[in-house]
Amino acid sequence: MNVLFDTSLFLPAIPYPDWLRRKMGEIQGVCMSSVEERLLFVHALAEQNVSEHTGSPFGAAVFHGRTHELVGVGVNQVIQANQSFAHAEMMALANAHDRLQVAELTDYELVSSCEPCVMCTGGFLWSKVRTLIYGEPGTTARSIGFDEGDKPANWEALLRQRGLQVLGPFPSEQGKRPFSLYKASQGKIY
Amino acid sequence: MNVLFDTSLFLPAIPYPDWLRRKMGEIQGVCMSSVEERLLFVHALAEQNVSEHTGSPFGAAVFHGRTHELVGVGVNQVIQANQSFAHAEMMALANAHDRLQVAELTDYELVSSCEPCVMCTGGFLWSKVRTLIYGEPGTTARSIGFDEGDKPANWEALLRQRGLQVLGPFPSEQGKRPFSLYKASQGKIY
Repeated sequence: MNVLFDTSLFLPAIPYPDWLRRKMGEIQGVCMSSVEERLLFVHALAEQNVSEHTGSPFGAAVFHGRTHELVGVGVNQVIQANQSFAHAEMMALANAHDRLQVAELTDYELVSSCEPCVMCTGGFLWSKVRTLIYGEPGTTARSIGFDEGDKPANWEALLRQRGLQVLGPFPSEQGKRPFSLYKASQGKIY
Repeated sequence: MNVLFDTSLFLPAIPYPDWLRRKMGEIQGVCMSSVEERLLFVHALAEQNVSEHTGSPFGAAVFHGRTHELVGVGVNQVIQANQSFAHAEMMALANAHDRLQVAELTDYELVSSCEPCVMCTGGFLWSKVRTLIYGEPGTTARSIGFDEGDKPANWEALLRQRGLQVLGPFPSEQGKRPFSLYKASQGKIY
């Protein structure tokens, strides 16, 4: 096979799924003041990604650290975009970088529906986001066959030693539902 | 600040720097049969990224595991793209996913100019690429102030336990030169 280099791009644009594009029109500039509200928002993203058949059961968002204004969203798009890095956290961070046009998200926080994998833990670190909040523990993802990769056992302590805040897990029924829906729909595990 | 959600994209396209777009026209379909040739290629990418002032001293590429045909390239574009995930390895993998239009790069290998950070180690794992070859040890990057994040001390053994091949480091003068050039040009460390 001869792969032709016929484009001028490293990476083509990754579009929102249609349901998320519609949703973004409704929630621009919204602030979510409580941790619970922010977690329910990312769990709802994860659930809709499954129910709309646009990806796997993971959602994430970036908020301003003080006003809690929503500045970026993400749902897992690995299969849809044919991009293995397109985890919910990476998409939310990329979305926030794009909207804010800054390479360092120092004043922001990342909220994820589930404990981040090794790649997303690194993505959080390099984004310069100061706070990570996550809902379900990694065991919820592993229970239906997903893998987190090999993080150091004390990954949270190591991030805290760098002056970062890590809050979680906050397990909940709303957090588990996207995973059970995905399993019931026989969604692809990768 | 009220951030307007006025686009329909998670992530806009990331273009090649001009010099790399020109270079890609010359090397489409090329095969590089020796590890040394492949490492010299990624070191040259890293060096040109510095000398052209288009980013930091990191280069990477994806090759077919048997024919060693080049199927994707990457240079660090964190500052240029305002995207903290845009490390050379992540760009090379994203480029290969795009060109091949597959979410799993099972038959391919990733060659990086330097030991991958925690994020890129995870990116390698999720890409399903079978082999990682890297040139400079992490100490070369750390010597001018770059950080790899917190990988498990036995990160290579953990990848090998998953059946993946990890070859490196292969330190060299050509591998160190992009870093000394970057330091001499007072390039941004982040």
